[in-house]
Amino acid sequence: MEVGEPDFPTPEPIIQAGMQALQQGHIQYTPALGIPALREAISRWYATRYHVEVPAERIAVTVGGSGALLLALGVLLSPGDEVLMSDPSYPCNRHFVRALEGRATLIPTSAQSDYQLTAAMVEEHWSPATAAVMLASPSNPTGTMISDLAMRALAATTHARGGRLIVDEIYHGLTYGCEAQTALAISDEIFVLNSFSKYFQMTGWRIGWLVVPPAYIREVEKLAQHLFISPPYLAQHAALAAFRPETLLITEARRAEFQRRRDFLLPALTQLGLAVPVTPVGAFYLYADCSRFSNDSFAFAEEVLYQAGVALTPGRDFGQHLPERHLRVTYTTSMENLREGVARLQRFLQR
Amino acid sequence: MEVGEPDFPTPEPIIQAGMQALQQGHIQYTPALGIPALREAISRWYATRYHVEVPAERIAVTVGGSGALLLALGVLLSPGDEVLMSDPSYPCNRHFVRALEGRATLIPTSAQSDYQLTAAMVEEHWSPATAAVMLASPSNPTGTMISDLAMRALAATTHARGGRLIVDEIYHGLTYGCEAQTALAISDEIFVLNSFSKYFQMTGWRIGWLVVPPAYIREVEKLAQHLFISPPYLAQHAALAAFRPETLLITEARRAEFQRRRDFLLPALTQLGLAVPVTPVGAFYLYADCSRFSNDSFAFAEEVLYQAGVALTPGRDFGQHLPERHLRVTYTTSMENLREGVARLQRFLQR
Repeated sequence: MEVGEPDFPTPEPIIQAGMQALQQGHIQYTPALGIPALREAISRWYATRYHVEVPAERIAVTVGGSGALLLALGVLLSPGDEVLMSDPSYPCNRHFVRALEGRATLIPTSAQSDYQLTAAMVEEHWSPATAAVMLASPSNPTGTMISDLAMRALAATTHARGGRLIVDEIYHGLTYGCEAQTALAISDEIFVLNSFSKYFQMTGWRIGWLVVPPAYIREVEKLAQHLFISPPYLAQHAALAAFRPETLLITEARRAEFQRRRDFLLPALTQLGLAVPVTPVGAFYLYADCSRFSNDSFAFAEEVLYQAGVALTPGRDFGQHLPERHLRVTYTTSMENLREGVARLQRFLQR
Repeated sequence: MEVGEPDFPTPEPIIQAGMQALQQGHIQYTPALGIPALREAISRWYATRYHVEVPAERIAVTVGGSGALLLALGVLLSPGDEVLMSDPSYPCNRHFVRALEGRATLIPTSAQSDYQLTAAMVEEHWSPATAAVMLASPSNPTGTMISDLAMRALAATTHARGGRLIVDEIYHGLTYGCEAQTALAISDEIFVLNSFSKYFQMTGWRIGWLVVPPAYIREVEKLAQHLFISPPYLAQHAALAAFRPETLLITEARRAEFQRRRDFLLPALTQLGLAVPVTPVGAFYLYADCSRFSNDSFAFAEEVLYQAGVALTPGRDFGQHLPERHLRVTYTTSMENLREGVARLQRFLQR
């Protein structure tokens, strides 16, 4: 109950498309921004799924969501530039910023704002060195989302100050009881990254994308050419099958299964005394408060691992704001395993 | 005669290994440094091919040679650090350095040193800000190599000054009439990058490796985890077949074919008046002097492209030292195409 990766294999139609590309045998470099057919397929996905027009020319296919983060931050940051992000958030974000010699400003968030940044927080923490604001909706580790209204306010505030918004939408598709709208519906000036890893269960293929504001397309292309040469060929050809109806039947069924798991795990943890103050509506994460049992979530997670045989992720992976009270719990495993995990936790906590 | 990519498809045993991995269906994240089986296979490759012991723990599997460059420079550079490299050299090297806020110091080289850096040049250009020296043997765009003796002197000079050597060996295997020895035979303290792209014809798979000095292994692992999560799963499993005898039969036959092409193209260009002062002994590049025909190789390449229908790469891609006199010519195309290309060049030059 620790790993941030779907337990489902890649859907069969994607595997088949990969097989066909492999049989043709010429596994070569592609254009730095990806094969045109995939960029166009992603563009159509925005049209059909979100009713938002995103021209293929603005879409860069990347080496996973990771590649998209590197490219977006690579074209935006100069040394010393600050990037605002929520605490807790995806651990690698602050390290990408650090690797590019920028500075990550972690803004403490709580259940009050669904563990997300608000426009008011961005205003409060803005400095002359601030260049960008990173958001994730749904978020890792909390599974919470940013409402359209809040996103509009965040974009307005950030753009008014001459900064850039980077919005991580890699858990889109994995939302429960609601659909996520893309931040691209608000403005062409937002960097949006997405991935085939989570909703399409293509983690090991290393394939994602970045939607780029018009003024940055050429810069992103040059940087992609230098840093990556091209995204993986097979993953691109396989991903062409991701948006097909027969694939979406599979991914939607799995989405329903993730929802069943969340609907089991959330009340089960709460009953055990591991409070989850905001109902997570996306991804496959719960951010639980373990302070009833321990004031050191790292030591607690270790105890749980060795004594109960359940793996949980301590809060310190995700930031510096009250990490010792928090654990991330994932439901990237079967209902059977989740039931067993909860039973073990129960025995351990009620010793 | 322009592209830096083998025209041969990936060898069949590698395709078959990829197919098997694909059929198993669980295309997931791997450890950040790669699957143990591949790290061990690479370690054995050093033992059998080079008679050098390189423990698997020091081998990081990377997203192509590009990923290896990013990781090596990422753990070595602080803002303002200087990296010495030859001019001409692989264009992306200076951009990797720039992206990480270092400074590339291009050192002019000529036929006199086979277009390679020497220990004397490193000494002459060393500054208090110098952190690393980048070498490539065989080199892109010149196809020249660094002798063992010269490499030893380069390592001694660089290490004596507290700097690090990064040696690009991605064209190893593609050497003609000689075998390349790895720089790892000289010291464990050298960063050596290699790739499955060129000799194993796996460009589009995006898979390479970095051999890391012991003190940097943990740093490279952390950076790889943050920037890439993992190298592509399928490419890793397919690459397991790269070192098998049946694959090496194919790659060695293709190496012989590259040699035949070089042996045709080198005298043909020379006869046309495109001088190649150093015989290239590796890769698939010739660095030709076109000053008999033009003092602007960019305009000349454009003319040749549109009027003769032959694509050549102007020198300015590779540096600032006399780029206007030089063109890179590749032999990554069939003998038939090379003959046709030379005939077209002849008609064009003898108008």
